[in-house]
Amino acid sequence: MAQQERAIRTRQKIVLAAAELFDEVGYEAATISEVLKRCGVTKGALYFHFASKEELAQEVLAGQVAALPPVPERELFLQQLTDEALVLAYLLHVGDPMVRGSVRLTVDQGSPYDGLDRGVPMQGWISHNTDVLARAKAAGELLPHVDISSAATLFTGSFTGVQVLSKIMTRHADMVERVADLMRTMVSAIAVPGVLVRLDFTPERAKLAYEEAARVRETGTTALAAASD
Amino acid sequence: MAQQERAIRTRQKIVLAAAELFDEVGYEAATISEVLKRCGVTKGALYFHFASKEELAQEVLAGQVAALPPVPERELFLQQLTDEALVLAYLLHVGDPMVRGSVRLTVDQGSPYDGLDRGVPMQGWISHNTDVLARAKAAGELLPHVDISSAATLFTGSFTGVQVLSKIMTRHADMVERVADLMRTMVSAIAVPGVLVRLDFTPERAKLAYEEAARVRETGTTALAAASD
Repeated sequence: MAQQERAIRTRQKIVLAAAELFDEVGYEAATISEVLKRCGVTKGALYFHFASKEELAQEVLAGQVAALPPVPERELFLQQLTDEALVLAYLLHVGDPMVRGSVRLTVDQGSPYDGLDRGVPMQGWISHNTDVLARAKAAGELLPHVDISSAATLFTGSFTGVQVLSKIMTRHADMVERVADLMRTMVSAIAVPGVLVRLDFTPERAKLAYEEAARVRETGTTALAAASD
Repeated sequence: MAQQERAIRTRQKIVLAAAELFDEVGYEAATISEVLKRCGVTKGALYFHFASKEELAQEVLAGQVAALPPVPERELFLQQLTDEALVLAYLLHVGDPMVRGSVRLTVDQGSPYDGLDRGVPMQGWISHNTDVLARAKAAGELLPHVDISSAATLFTGSFTGVQVLSKIMTRHADMVERVADLMRTMVSAIAVPGVLVRLDFTPERAKLAYEEAARVRETGTTALAAASD
Protein backbone atom coordinates (compact mmCIF):
# COMPACT_ATOMS: atom_id res chain seq x y z
CA MET A 1 0.00 0.00 0.00
CA ALA A 2 2.77 2.43 0.96
CA GLN A 3 4.60 1.46 -2.24
CA GLN A 4 1.52 2.12 -4.32
CA GLU A 5 1.10 5.49 -2.63
CA ARG A 6 4.73 6.40 -3.40
CA ALA A 7 4.16 5.48 -7.04
CA ILE A 8 1.10 7.75 -7.19
CA ARG A 9 3.07 10.64 -5.68
CA THR A 10 5.94 10.15 -8.11
CA ARG A 11 3.50 10.12 -11.00
CA GLN A 12 1.88 13.35 -9.73
CA LYS A 13 5.29 15.02 -9.36
CA ILE A 14 6.18 14.14 -12.96
CA VAL A 15 2.85 15.37 -14.35
CA LEU A 16 3.07 18.65 -12.41
CA ALA A 17 6.64 19.34 -13.60
CA ALA A 18 5.59 18.57 -17.18
CA ALA A 19 2.55 20.87 -16.96
CA GLU A 20 4.75 23.69 -15.65
CA LEU A 21 7.21 23.18 -18.52
CA PHE A 22 4.45 22.97 -21.16
CA ASP A 23 3.07 26.25 -19.82
CA GLU A 24 6.45 27.96 -20.12
CA VAL A 25 7.73 26.72 -23.49
CA GLY A 26 4.88 24.83 -25.21
CA TYR A 27 4.79 21.21 -26.36
CA GLU A 28 7.36 21.32 -29.18
CA ALA A 29 10.15 22.91 -27.16
CA ALA A 30 9.60 20.83 -24.01
CA THR A 31 11.98 17.90 -23.39
CA ILE A 32 11.82 14.86 -21.13
CA SER A 33 15.26 15.72 -19.72
CA GLU A 34 14.03 19.15 -18.58
CA VAL A 35 11.01 17.47 -16.92
CA LEU A 36 13.42 15.12 -15.11
CA LYS A 37 15.54 18.04 -13.90
CA ARG A 38 12.48 19.79 -12.47
CA CYS A 39 10.84 16.88 -10.66
CA GLY A 40 13.98 15.16 -9.38
CA VAL A 41 12.76 11.73 -10.49
CA THR A 42 15.01 9.15 -12.15
CA LYS A 43 14.76 8.50 -15.87
CA GLY A 44 13.76 4.90 -15.13
CA ALA A 45 10.92 6.01 -12.86
CA LEU A 46 9.62 8.46 -15.45
CA TYR A 47 9.65 5.90 -18.25
CA PHE A 48 7.96 3.39 -15.93
CA HIS A 49 4.98 5.78 -15.85
CA PHE A 50 5.15 7.40 -19.30
CA ALA A 51 6.54 5.93 -22.50
CA SER A 52 6.94 9.30 -24.27
CA LYS A 53 6.52 13.07 -24.12
CA GLU A 54 3.28 12.56 -26.01
CA GLU A 55 1.86 10.28 -23.30
CA LEU A 56 2.89 12.79 -20.65
CA ALA A 57 1.18 15.64 -22.52
CA GLN A 58 -1.94 13.56 -23.01
CA GLU A 59 -2.06 12.96 -19.23
CA VAL A 60 -1.77 16.72 -18.61
CA LEU A 61 -4.61 17.32 -21.10
CA ALA A 62 -6.74 14.61 -19.50
CA GLY A 63 -6.25 16.15 -16.04
CA GLN A 64 -7.60 19.58 -17.00
CA VAL A 65 -11.18 19.19 -15.82
CA ALA A 66 -10.11 17.36 -12.63
CA ALA A 67 -7.68 20.22 -11.85
CA LEU A 68 -10.73 22.31 -10.93
CA PRO A 69 -11.44 21.69 -7.23
CA PRO A 70 -15.07 20.61 -6.71
CA VAL A 71 -17.30 23.61 -6.06
CA PRO A 72 -19.92 22.47 -3.49
CA GLU A 73 -23.47 22.30 -4.85
CA ARG A 74 -25.27 25.66 -4.76
CA GLU A 75 -28.98 26.28 -4.34
CA LEU A 76 -29.04 27.46 -7.97
CA PHE A 77 -27.22 25.44 -10.62
CA LEU A 78 -26.50 28.59 -12.63
CA GLN A 79 -24.64 29.92 -9.57
CA GLN A 80 -22.62 26.72 -9.53
CA LEU A 81 -21.80 27.11 -13.24
CA THR A 82 -20.75 30.70 -12.55
CA ASP A 83 -18.65 29.82 -9.50
CA GLU A 84 -16.88 27.04 -11.37
CA ALA A 85 -15.95 29.47 -14.14
CA LEU A 86 -14.75 31.98 -11.54
CA VAL A 87 -12.62 29.36 -9.74
CA LEU A 88 -11.01 28.30 -13.02
CA ALA A 89 -10.38 31.96 -13.85
CA TYR A 90 -8.82 32.43 -10.42
CA LEU A 91 -6.49 29.45 -10.93
CA LEU A 92 -5.34 30.88 -14.27
CA HIS A 93 -4.93 34.31 -12.68
CA VAL A 94 -2.73 33.08 -9.80
CA GLY A 95 -0.76 30.84 -12.16
CA ASP A 96 -1.72 27.30 -11.16
CA PRO A 97 0.79 25.28 -13.24
CA MET A 98 -1.49 22.30 -13.90
CA VAL A 99 -4.30 24.46 -15.26
CA ARG A 100 -2.05 26.83 -17.20
CA GLY A 101 0.03 24.02 -18.71
CA SER A 102 -2.99 22.04 -19.71
CA VAL A 103 -4.79 25.05 -21.17
CA ARG A 104 -1.75 26.03 -23.23
CA LEU A 105 -1.46 22.47 -24.61
CA THR A 106 -5.13 22.70 -25.62
CA VAL A 107 -5.03 26.11 -27.27
CA ASP A 108 -1.67 25.95 -29.09
CA GLN A 109 -2.41 24.39 -32.46
CA GLY A 110 0.84 22.46 -32.64
CA SER A 111 1.69 20.23 -35.56
CA PRO A 112 -0.94 17.98 -37.12
CA TYR A 113 1.64 15.20 -36.62
CA ASP A 114 2.23 15.67 -32.87
CA GLY A 115 -0.52 13.16 -32.14
CA LEU A 116 -2.03 15.14 -29.24
CA ASP A 117 -5.79 14.90 -28.88
CA ARG A 118 -6.78 18.42 -27.84
CA GLY A 119 -10.43 17.39 -27.99
CA VAL A 120 -10.14 15.47 -24.71
CA PRO A 121 -10.30 18.43 -22.29
CA MET A 122 -12.73 20.31 -24.54
CA GLN A 123 -15.11 17.35 -24.60
CA GLY A 124 -14.63 17.07 -20.84
CA TRP A 125 -15.75 20.67 -20.30
CA ILE A 126 -18.66 20.37 -22.72
CA SER A 127 -19.89 17.21 -20.93
CA HIS A 128 -19.48 18.78 -17.52
CA ASN A 129 -21.28 22.00 -18.53
CA THR A 130 -24.03 20.00 -20.25
CA ASP A 131 -24.59 18.14 -16.98
CA VAL A 132 -24.84 21.31 -14.86
CA LEU A 133 -27.09 23.01 -17.43
CA ALA A 134 -29.36 19.96 -17.61
CA ARG A 135 -29.85 20.21 -13.85
CA ALA A 136 -30.52 23.94 -14.19
CA LYS A 137 -33.13 23.16 -16.83
CA ALA A 138 -34.79 20.48 -14.71
CA ALA A 139 -34.93 22.96 -11.82
CA GLY A 140 -36.69 25.52 -14.03
CA GLU A 141 -33.77 27.98 -14.08
CA LEU A 142 -33.53 28.25 -17.88
CA LEU A 143 -35.67 30.02 -20.45
CA PRO A 144 -37.69 27.47 -22.42
CA HIS A 145 -35.89 27.98 -25.76
CA VAL A 146 -32.41 27.16 -24.41
CA ASP A 147 -30.65 24.22 -26.07
CA ILE A 148 -28.48 22.61 -23.38
CA SER A 149 -25.88 21.16 -25.71
CA SER A 150 -25.37 24.38 -27.73
CA ALA A 151 -25.18 26.44 -24.54
CA ALA A 152 -22.59 24.07 -22.99
CA THR A 153 -20.47 24.28 -26.16
CA LEU A 154 -20.80 28.07 -26.24
CA PHE A 155 -19.75 28.46 -22.59
CA THR A 156 -16.72 26.23 -23.17
CA GLY A 157 -15.65 28.07 -26.31
CA SER A 158 -16.22 31.55 -24.93
CA PHE A 159 -14.31 30.84 -21.73
CA THR A 160 -11.40 29.56 -23.80
CA GLY A 161 -11.25 32.75 -25.83
CA VAL A 162 -11.65 35.11 -22.90
CA GLN A 163 -8.66 33.28 -21.44
CA VAL A 164 -6.60 33.72 -24.63
CA LEU A 165 -7.42 37.42 -24.79
CA SER A 166 -6.70 38.05 -21.08
CA LYS A 167 -3.37 36.22 -21.42
CA ILE A 168 -2.35 38.28 -24.45
CA MET A 169 -3.47 41.68 -23.18
CA THR A 170 -2.73 41.44 -19.44
CA ARG A 171 -0.92 38.14 -18.77
CA HIS A 172 -4.10 36.98 -16.94
CA ALA A 173 -4.18 40.03 -14.64
CA ASP A 174 -7.80 40.82 -15.59
CA MET A 175 -8.87 37.18 -16.03
CA VAL A 176 -11.33 37.07 -13.14
CA GLU A 177 -13.06 40.35 -14.10
CA ARG A 178 -13.34 39.25 -17.75
CA VAL A 179 -14.86 35.89 -16.81
CA ALA A 180 -17.30 37.55 -14.37
CA ASP A 181 -18.34 39.74 -17.28
CA LEU A 182 -18.68 36.74 -19.60
CA MET A 183 -20.84 34.83 -17.15
CA ARG A 184 -23.08 37.83 -16.41
CA THR A 185 -23.66 38.36 -20.14
CA MET A 186 -24.16 34.72 -21.15
CA VAL A 187 -26.32 33.75 -18.19
CA SER A 188 -28.49 36.84 -18.79
CA ALA A 189 -29.39 35.33 -22.15
CA ILE A 190 -30.46 31.93 -20.78
CA ALA A 191 -31.81 32.38 -17.21
CA VAL A 192 -35.43 33.11 -16.27
CA PRO A 193 -35.74 36.58 -14.67
CA GLY A 194 -36.66 35.26 -11.23
CA VAL A 195 -33.42 33.27 -11.10
CA LEU A 196 -31.27 35.95 -12.71
CA VAL A 197 -31.89 38.48 -9.93
CA ARG A 198 -30.73 35.95 -7.33
CA LEU A 199 -27.37 35.25 -9.00
CA ASP A 200 -24.10 36.84 -7.91
CA PHE A 201 -21.52 37.59 -10.62
CA THR A 202 -19.13 39.74 -8.60
CA PRO A 203 -15.44 38.97 -9.28
CA GLU A 204 -14.80 38.89 -5.51
CA ARG A 205 -16.58 35.51 -5.38
CA ALA A 206 -13.67 33.90 -7.26
CA LYS A 207 -11.11 33.77 -4.43
CA LEU A 208 -13.69 32.78 -1.80
CA ALA A 209 -15.17 30.06 -4.00
CA TYR A 210 -11.68 28.75 -4.74
CA GLU A 211 -10.72 28.60 -1.06
CA GLU A 212 -13.96 26.81 -0.24
CA ALA A 213 -13.47 24.28 -3.05
CA ALA A 214 -9.82 23.73 -2.10
CA ARG A 215 -10.87 22.98 1.49
CA VAL A 216 -13.41 20.45 0.23
CA ARG A 217 -10.78 18.76 -1.93
CA GLU A 218 -8.21 18.69 0.87
CA THR A 219 -10.67 17.23 3.36
CA GLY A 220 -11.68 14.65 0.77
CA THR A 221 -8.06 13.66 0.17
CA THR A 222 -7.30 13.46 3.89
CA ALA A 223 -10.32 11.27 4.53
CA LEU A 224 -9.29 9.00 1.66
CA ALA A 225 -5.69 8.75 2.92
CA ALA A 226 -6.92 7.95 6.43
CA ALA A 227 -9.27 5.25 5.10
CA SER A 228 -6.43 3.55 3.17
CA ASP A 229 -4.20 3.22 6.29
CA MET B 1 3.89 54.01 -60.86
CA ALA B 2 3.99 50.59 -62.55
CA GLN B 3 7.16 49.80 -60.59
CA GLN B 4 5.49 50.77 -57.33
CA GLU B 5 2.50 48.62 -58.16
CA ARG B 6 4.78 45.66 -58.88
CA ALA B 7 6.46 46.18 -55.51
CA ILE B 8 3.07 46.16 -53.77
CA ARG B 9 2.07 42.93 -55.53
CA THR B 10 5.37 41.26 -54.62
CA ARG B 11 4.89 42.30 -51.02
CA GLN B 12 1.34 40.89 -51.02
CA LYS B 13 2.54 37.61 -52.53
CA ILE B 14 5.17 37.25 -49.79
CA VAL B 15 2.73 38.04 -46.98
CA LEU B 16 0.13 35.61 -48.32
CA ALA B 17 2.66 32.77 -48.65
CA ALA B 18 3.91 33.48 -45.12
CA ALA B 19 0.37 33.49 -43.71
CA GLU B 20 -0.34 30.15 -45.38
CA LEU B 21 2.84 28.66 -43.93
CA PHE B 22 2.18 30.07 -40.43
CA ASP B 23 -1.28 28.49 -40.57
CA GLU B 24 0.16 25.10 -41.46
CA VAL B 25 3.17 24.82 -39.17
CA GLY B 26 3.08 27.73 -36.69
CA TYR B 27 5.63 30.50 -36.17
CA GLU B 28 8.52 28.49 -34.70
CA ALA B 29 8.64 25.86 -37.44
CA ALA B 30 8.18 28.29 -40.34
CA THR B 31 11.29 29.28 -42.32
CA ILE B 32 12.06 32.12 -44.72
CA SER B 33 13.33 29.61 -47.29
CA GLU B 34 9.97 27.81 -47.30
CA VAL B 35 8.18 31.17 -47.77
CA LEU B 36 10.49 31.87 -50.75
CA LYS B 37 9.70 28.47 -52.27
CA ARG B 38 5.97 29.12 -52.03
CA CYS B 39 5.80 32.64 -53.40
CA GLY B 40 8.47 32.34 -56.11
CA VAL B 41 10.11 35.62 -55.14
CA THR B 42 13.89 36.09 -54.95
CA LYS B 43 15.64 36.20 -51.59
CA GLY B 44 16.78 39.76 -52.34
CA ALA B 45 13.22 40.89 -53.05
CA LEU B 46 11.95 39.34 -49.82
CA TYR B 47 14.67 40.96 -47.71
CA PHE B 48 14.03 44.26 -49.45
CA HIS B 49 10.52 44.16 -47.93
CA PHE B 50 11.10 42.25 -44.67
CA ALA B 51 14.27 42.13 -42.59
CA SER B 52 13.29 38.96 -40.69
CA LYS B 53 10.70 36.25 -40.09
CA GLU B 54 9.56 38.29 -37.11
CA GLU B 55 8.81 41.34 -39.29
CA LEU B 56 6.93 39.14 -41.73
CA ALA B 57 4.83 37.61 -38.92
CA GLN B 58 4.11 41.03 -37.47
CA GLU B 59 2.81 42.13 -40.89
CA VAL B 60 0.52 39.08 -41.03
CA LEU B 61 -0.74 39.92 -37.51
CA ALA B 62 -1.28 43.56 -38.45
CA GLY B 63 -3.30 42.57 -41.52
CA GLN B 64 -5.85 40.51 -39.61
CA VAL B 65 -8.58 43.12 -39.21
CA ALA B 66 -8.11 44.39 -42.78
CA ALA B 67 -8.44 40.82 -44.09
CA LEU B 68 -12.17 41.10 -43.31
CA PRO B 69 -13.83 42.56 -46.42
CA PRO B 70 -15.92 45.62 -45.53
CA VAL B 71 -19.52 44.69 -44.74
CA PRO B 72 -21.72 47.52 -46.11
CA GLU B 73 -23.49 49.54 -43.42
CA ARG B 74 -26.76 47.96 -42.22
CA GLU B 75 -29.85 49.72 -40.98
CA LEU B 76 -29.08 48.29 -37.52
CA PHE B 77 -25.52 48.43 -36.22
CA LEU B 78 -26.04 45.20 -34.26
CA GLN B 79 -26.83 43.51 -37.58
CA GLN B 80 -23.56 44.86 -38.94
CA LEU B 81 -21.66 43.49 -35.91
CA THR B 82 -23.36 40.13 -36.44
CA ASP B 83 -22.68 40.05 -40.18
CA GLU B 84 -19.01 40.93 -39.66
CA ALA B 85 -18.66 38.04 -37.20
CA LEU B 86 -20.42 35.72 -39.68
CA VAL B 87 -18.15 36.81 -42.55
CA LEU B 88 -15.03 36.21 -40.45
CA ALA B 89 -16.42 32.82 -39.43
CA TYR B 90 -17.07 32.03 -43.10
CA LEU B 91 -13.48 32.93 -44.05
CA LEU B 92 -12.14 30.62 -41.34
CA HIS B 93 -14.56 27.89 -42.43
CA VAL B 94 -13.52 28.00 -46.10
CA GLY B 95 -9.84 28.26 -45.13
CA ASP B 96 -8.83 31.77 -46.17
CA PRO B 97 -5.04 31.56 -45.65
CA MET B 98 -4.57 35.19 -44.55
CA VAL B 99 -7.21 34.95 -41.82
CA ARG B 100 -6.26 31.45 -40.69
CA GLY B 101 -2.53 32.21 -40.61
CA SER B 102 -3.01 35.44 -38.74
CA VAL B 103 -5.42 33.90 -36.24
CA ARG B 104 -3.04 31.03 -35.53
CA LEU B 105 -0.17 33.47 -34.93
CA THR B 106 -2.39 35.31 -32.45
CA VAL B 107 -3.66 32.31 -30.52
CA ASP B 108 -0.50 30.18 -30.32
CA GLN B 109 1.33 31.36 -27.21
CA GLY B 110 4.78 30.93 -28.70
CA SER B 111 7.93 31.76 -26.79
CA PRO B 112 8.09 34.88 -24.59
CA TYR B 113 11.30 35.63 -26.54
CA ASP B 114 9.86 35.44 -30.06
CA GLY B 115 9.15 39.18 -29.94
CA LEU B 116 5.73 38.92 -31.62
CA ASP B 117 3.12 41.39 -30.41
CA ARG B 118 -0.08 39.34 -30.39
CA GLY B 119 -1.92 42.30 -28.89
CA VAL B 120 -1.95 44.14 -32.25
CA PRO B 121 -4.84 42.23 -33.91
CA MET B 122 -6.67 41.85 -30.58
CA GLN B 123 -6.52 45.60 -29.96
CA GLY B 124 -7.61 46.10 -33.58
CA TRP B 125 -10.75 43.99 -33.08
CA ILE B 126 -11.55 45.59 -29.73
CA SER B 127 -11.27 49.08 -31.27
CA HIS B 128 -13.35 48.11 -34.27
CA ASN B 129 -16.08 46.48 -32.15
CA THR B 130 -16.06 49.43 -29.74
CA ASP B 131 -16.70 51.71 -32.69
CA VAL B 132 -19.65 49.67 -34.03
CA LEU B 133 -21.13 49.27 -30.53
CA ALA B 134 -20.81 53.01 -29.86
CA ARG B 135 -22.87 53.66 -33.01
CA ALA B 136 -25.39 51.04 -31.86
CA LYS B 137 -25.62 52.81 -28.51
CA ALA B 138 -26.07 56.23 -30.12
CA ALA B 139 -28.84 54.77 -32.27
CA GLY B 140 -30.64 53.47 -29.17
CA GLU B 141 -30.08 49.78 -29.99
CA LEU B 142 -28.48 48.86 -26.65
CA LEU B 143 -29.92 48.35 -23.20
CA PRO B 144 -28.96 51.29 -20.95
CA HIS B 145 -26.61 49.34 -18.63
CA VAL B 146 -24.31 48.11 -21.43
CA ASP B 147 -20.68 49.15 -21.11
CA ILE B 148 -19.35 49.54 -24.68
CA SER B 149 -15.73 48.80 -23.89
CA SER B 150 -16.44 45.64 -21.83
CA ALA B 151 -18.86 44.38 -24.46
CA ALA B 152 -16.33 44.96 -27.27
CA THR B 153 -13.67 43.06 -25.31
CA LEU B 154 -16.11 40.25 -24.54
CA PHE B 155 -17.15 39.85 -28.20
CA THR B 156 -13.50 39.74 -29.27
CA GLY B 157 -12.53 37.18 -26.63
CA SER B 158 -15.57 34.95 -27.11
CA PHE B 159 -15.17 34.86 -30.89
CA THR B 160 -11.54 33.84 -30.45
CA GLY B 161 -12.49 30.93 -28.21
CA VAL B 162 -15.38 29.73 -30.32
CA GLN B 163 -12.84 29.63 -33.16
CA VAL B 164 -10.35 27.59 -31.11
CA LEU B 165 -13.05 25.11 -30.08
CA SER B 166 -14.47 24.76 -33.61
CA LYS B 167 -10.97 24.19 -34.98
CA ILE B 168 -10.19 21.50 -32.37
CA MET B 169 -13.52 19.66 -32.55
CA THR B 170 -14.44 19.94 -36.24
CA ARG B 171 -11.51 21.60 -38.09
CA HIS B 172 -13.78 24.66 -38.58
CA ALA B 173 -16.61 22.64 -40.16
CA ASP B 174 -19.17 24.00 -37.66
CA MET B 175 -17.56 27.45 -37.35
CA VAL B 176 -20.42 29.44 -38.94
CA GLU B 177 -23.14 27.72 -36.86
CA ARG B 178 -21.16 28.21 -33.63
CA VAL B 179 -20.61 31.91 -34.34
CA ALA B 180 -24.28 32.42 -35.25
CA ASP B 181 -25.10 30.85 -31.88
CA LEU B 182 -22.57 33.09 -30.11
CA MET B 183 -23.95 36.26 -31.67
CA ARG B 184 -27.58 35.32 -30.94
CA THR B 185 -26.74 34.69 -27.29
CA MET B 186 -24.49 37.71 -26.71
CA VAL B 187 -26.65 40.20 -28.60
CA SER B 188 -29.72 38.94 -26.70
CA ALA B 189 -28.04 40.18 -23.52
CA ILE B 190 -27.33 43.71 -24.80
CA ALA B 191 -30.02 44.67 -27.35
CA VAL B 192 -33.33 46.37 -26.59
CA PRO B 193 -36.26 44.03 -27.37
CA GLY B 194 -37.57 46.13 -30.28
CA VAL B 195 -34.20 45.81 -32.03
CA LEU B 196 -33.65 42.18 -31.09
CA VAL B 197 -36.73 40.96 -32.94
CA ARG B 198 -35.53 42.66 -36.13
CA LEU B 199 -32.10 40.98 -36.16
CA ASP B 200 -31.24 37.94 -38.27
CA PHE B 201 -28.77 35.44 -36.83
CA THR B 202 -29.25 32.61 -39.32
CA PRO B 203 -25.98 30.93 -40.38
CA GLU B 204 -27.08 31.18 -44.03
CA ARG B 205 -26.35 34.92 -43.90
CA ALA B 206 -22.60 34.20 -43.66
CA LYS B 207 -21.97 33.21 -47.29
CA LEU B 208 -24.25 35.91 -48.71
CA ALA B 209 -22.72 38.62 -46.52
CA TYR B 210 -19.23 37.48 -47.51
CA GLU B 211 -20.04 37.58 -51.24
CA GLU B 212 -21.55 41.02 -50.87
CA ALA B 213 -18.52 42.32 -48.93
CA ALA B 214 -16.09 40.74 -51.39
CA ARG B 215 -17.88 42.51 -54.28
CA VAL B 216 -17.61 45.83 -52.44
CA ARG B 217 -13.89 45.29 -51.86
CA GLU B 218 -13.27 44.27 -55.46
CA THR B 219 -15.16 47.23 -56.86
CA GLY B 220 -13.29 49.49 -54.44
CA THR B 221 -9.94 48.11 -55.57
CA THR B 222 -10.84 48.40 -59.23
CA ALA B 223 -11.98 51.98 -58.80
CA LEU B 224 -8.78 52.78 -56.96
CA ALA B 225 -6.60 51.12 -59.62
CA ALA B 226 -8.44 53.01 -62.35
CA ALA B 227 -7.99 56.29 -60.50
CA SER B 228 -4.23 55.73 -60.19
CA ASP B 229 -3.72 55.21 -63.94
